[in-house]
Amino acid sequence: PYQRQTHDFFLPEKLREDAQRKLEAAHQVLANSALPNVDHFTSLVPLDTNNRESSTIFGYTSWVYKAVSQENGRTYCLRRIKDFRLSNENAIRSVKEWKRVHNGSVVSVHSAFTTRRFQDSSIIFVYDFHPLSKTLSQQHFTQTNNRYNPRTTVTEDLLWSYITQIANALRAIHKLNLAARCLDPSKIILTEKNRIRLSACSILDVLQYDARRPLQDLQQDDLAQFGKVMLCLASNTPPSSLNNNNAPLIMQQLSAVYSEPLVGNIMWLLFPPQSGETKTIDAFLTKISGQIMSNLDMLMHQNDGLNSTLYQEIENGRLFRLLCKLGTINERQEFDGDRQWSENGERYMIKLFRDYVFHQVDSNGQPVVDMGHIVRCLNKLDAGTEERICLTSRDDQSAFVVSYKELKKQIGSAFGELLKGRTNAGRGF
Amino acid sequence: PYQRQTHDFFLPEKLREDAQRKLEAAHQVLANSALPNVDHFTSLVPLDTNNRESSTIFGYTSWVYKAVSQENGRTYCLRRIKDFRLSNENAIRSVKEWKRVHNGSVVSVHSAFTTRRFQDSSIIFVYDFHPLSKTLSQQHFTQTNNRYNPRTTVTEDLLWSYITQIANALRAIHKLNLAARCLDPSKIILTEKNRIRLSACSILDVLQYDARRPLQDLQQDDLAQFGKVMLCLASNTPPSSLNNNNAPLIMQQLSAVYSEPLVGNIMWLLFPPQSGETKTIDAFLTKISGQIMSNLDMLMHQNDGLNSTLYQEIENGRLFRLLCKLGTINERQEFDGDRQWSENGERYMIKLFRDYVFHQVDSNGQPVVDMGHIVRCLNKLDAGTEERICLTSRDDQSAFVVSYKELKKQIGSAFGELLKGRTNAGRGF
Ligand SMILES: Nc1ncnc2c1ncn2[C@@H]1O[C@H](COP(=O)(O)OP(=O)(O)OP(=O)(O)O)[C@@H](O)[C@H]1O
Ligand SMILES: Nc1ncnc2c1ncn2[C@@H]1O[C@H](COP(=O)(O)OP(=O)(O)OP(=O)(O)O)[C@@H](O)[C@H]1O
Ligand SMILES: [Mg+2]
Ligand SMILES: [Mg+2]
Repeated sequence: PYQRQTHDFFLPEKLREDAQRKLEAAHQVLANSALPNVDHFTSLVPLDTNNRESSTIFGYTSWVYKAVSQENGRTYCLRRIKDFRLSNENAIRSVKEWKRVHNGSVVSVHSAFTTRRFQDSSIIFVYDFHPLSKTLSQQHFTQTNNRYNPRTTVTEDLLWSYITQIANALRAIHKLNLAARCLDPSKIILTEKNRIRLSACSILDVLQYDARRPLQDLQQDDLAQFGKVMLCLASNTPPSSLNNNNAPLIMQQLSAVYSEPLVGNIMWLLFPPQSGETKTIDAFLTKISGQIMSNLDMLMHQNDGLNSTLYQEIENGRLFRLLCKLGTINERQEFDGDRQWSENGERYMIKLFRDYVFHQVDSNGQPVVDMGHIVRCLNKLDAGTEERICLTSRDDQSAFVVSYKELKKQIGSAFGELLKGRTNAGRGF
Repeated sequence: PYQRQTHDFFLPEKLREDAQRKLEAAHQVLANSALPNVDHFTSLVPLDTNNRESSTIFGYTSWVYKAVSQENGRTYCLRRIKDFRLSNENAIRSVKEWKRVHNGSVVSVHSAFTTRRFQDSSIIFVYDFHPLSKTLSQQHFTQTNNRYNPRTTVTEDLLWSYITQIANALRAIHKLNLAARCLDPSKIILTEKNRIRLSACSILDVLQYDARRPLQDLQQDDLAQFGKVMLCLASNTPPSSLNNNNAPLIMQQLSAVYSEPLVGNIMWLLFPPQSGETKTIDAFLTKISGQIMSNLDMLMHQNDGLNSTLYQEIENGRLFRLLCKLGTINERQEFDGDRQWSENGERYMIKLFRDYVFHQVDSNGQPVVDMGHIVRCLNKLDAGTEERICLTSRDDQSAFVVSYKELKKQIGSAFGELLKGRTNAGRGF
């Protein structure tokens, strides 16, 4: 009664396209690049789309590159801080501390090193690479805001999701006696749908090593900056447009759009604590526990979805291996004339089966090309069902009735034959 | 320098095996089954592994089956309550309320109906099917507890994960003015690694419809039962072995093994609230907010892992489609003698390429069967790289140097040729 359709076997087109675009972005190389290799990193590709130099965040111009490590073949993200001269070797060691942060809302930091390969003194920070990511500034503040093209308001749910994720990051960071320090919409990246990560950790620890401030202060600053990021996003105001004059009005207007708890929590982050109290990230978590749970549940659903998609794809992978097996068996020249592989020997059936799977014709002798037929045949073959099919020779002179079970056995033994006596043979099948 | 290995292209073996076992479990059918079809459900397979009748939880014997819906081809889980006579039509309607619960820690309830197909009066509850799940009782209480085989203690982290998930379930349920009612280790199932779900929701609402109790009481009960489940798991005591005599000692012993917050939270659930207070699930969430966040972060990591595995599998799917294309083109009989497809025509190159991919031989003329070679060739073909390869005819008399880019074009046009003028052709490619 119910038959699985071809599209059941394959990914939703959107997911496939996303994956494809990400794989391409990760593999993209630049022809005739003038960029040097640095340390064991090659194939640098710049990621800054606007070519504007800006030193607002770090006090130095910075550039971001994709690069491939020659140590392990993996792709990384490098951030280069230009014209920075390292005066103290201890400064760069503070990066080590950051290697202990393994958090789903922080881009992992790997190492830092100085280089003169750019014809200046630069320092490079090495991060995980997240293909096709955008900064929150790019995502939310780049549309021109006019009456034809008004900025869209961020939904309450999305703001809660951002809040939960930044809180997740700060919890991990503060727990290890560190501080995020540059919490800014331009340094938080959107890596997958609604997933954000802090992208520039550890940099200010190195750059401002000589002007160190107490950890306690830096962590309090993190909370205030967190509040400011949320205020900017909720009011669609880029940080550079927010000032002491317009802030009160902007805060006032939030209540018209968002719930009391959302606004209240942003205010809690922004303003100094009540007398005596010190604000902590853990205290903040208790205030948003319900929202954390909602986000946890969303992730569970996503996880379930990914799992079942993955299972579908696993079926594909299985069929791919099967086709590879068939490919290695059929039409092998070196067995031409060999009794077992010949036109009336055992392997002949496998060849006719291949015709049955791929070379169907309609009543007019026109080729029929139907992925559904191919997938169904291969699934039955893989399962070795009892179902019998009729295979006809090319000259229509003979017909064989054979079950998938028998075919499966024959293919298994033909393949075994190929591998006979060879060590390490059949790798990957 | 660095080359991707074959195993990079395929799933970790463990994941594949799990997936395979789950797919098999989902497709498993019973030969010569004596079980009837009920409503639009067929192919019933019993899931109760111990054949013991028990009516502790519902007051009636219950049996669990896997079944396939003839309406949509999907697999469901049916729970049959035996010898239950529905006295009030409204009772069964309360199942509708449960259809609004979409929560990652609750097995979704679909419907309920009565049936006489089992030669008695039974009522059937229809749930999502989660292949190969086990109850928490099966997981934690079935080992025999002796000195050769002592029960293993559940780790603190796992307990927190369970607490977070059950709290997630209760939050969703209580919010919709419902109560879980049968929170018991035998009715909580482990569906994936460390993922649990409440598996028998809505049943007691129907069975005890005539003896309804106030929602407030039922929800308070949920919290106490939640505490009891956790006490049982933490102390490795099946619920049936827990009684008023041994409970105080068991509670006392927890502190030796687990942290103060864990024990404190279990006690909070177990004991009546302080004077005046009413306990709510939301109040509980604020108490465990840090743990919820830890679990959220774990899920993010899982998600990232699933995503990258999925991307690998997507590459496989792509190669599978490509092989299907090659399969439809090569050795088509109806074009025997056709100039374009013949031994020196355009399609000939595609045939030789097939030999190059699948029919490599070593210096002794022995077949070489190497998945790595196949995958690399197909990837280059799919990307249409400029790399040139040398294809030799079977009689070694001629050789052609051709780039993957050209081959890709030729295959595209040969495939287009096959589909020419046919509507709906090439479905799924
Ligand atoms: N770890 C990463 N992986 C992948 N892409 C990244 C990573 N970190 C940053 N990017 C991307 O690199 C680009 C440049 O980042 P950058 O932080 O320089 O933003 P910007 O808008 O240029 O800000 P600024 O003006 O401060 O330089 C952005 O598109 C960002 O999404
Ligand atoms: N939705 C479901 N999907 C898949 N399997 C399920 C589902 N619900 C329950 N099961 C499985 O069915 C089996 C029987 O469940 P059941 O609740 O009857 O447990 P039990 O140990 O037999 O308890 P009882 O003695 O109360 O019947 C268990 O192995 C359980 O994991
Ligand atoms: Mg930049
Ligand atoms: Mg049972």
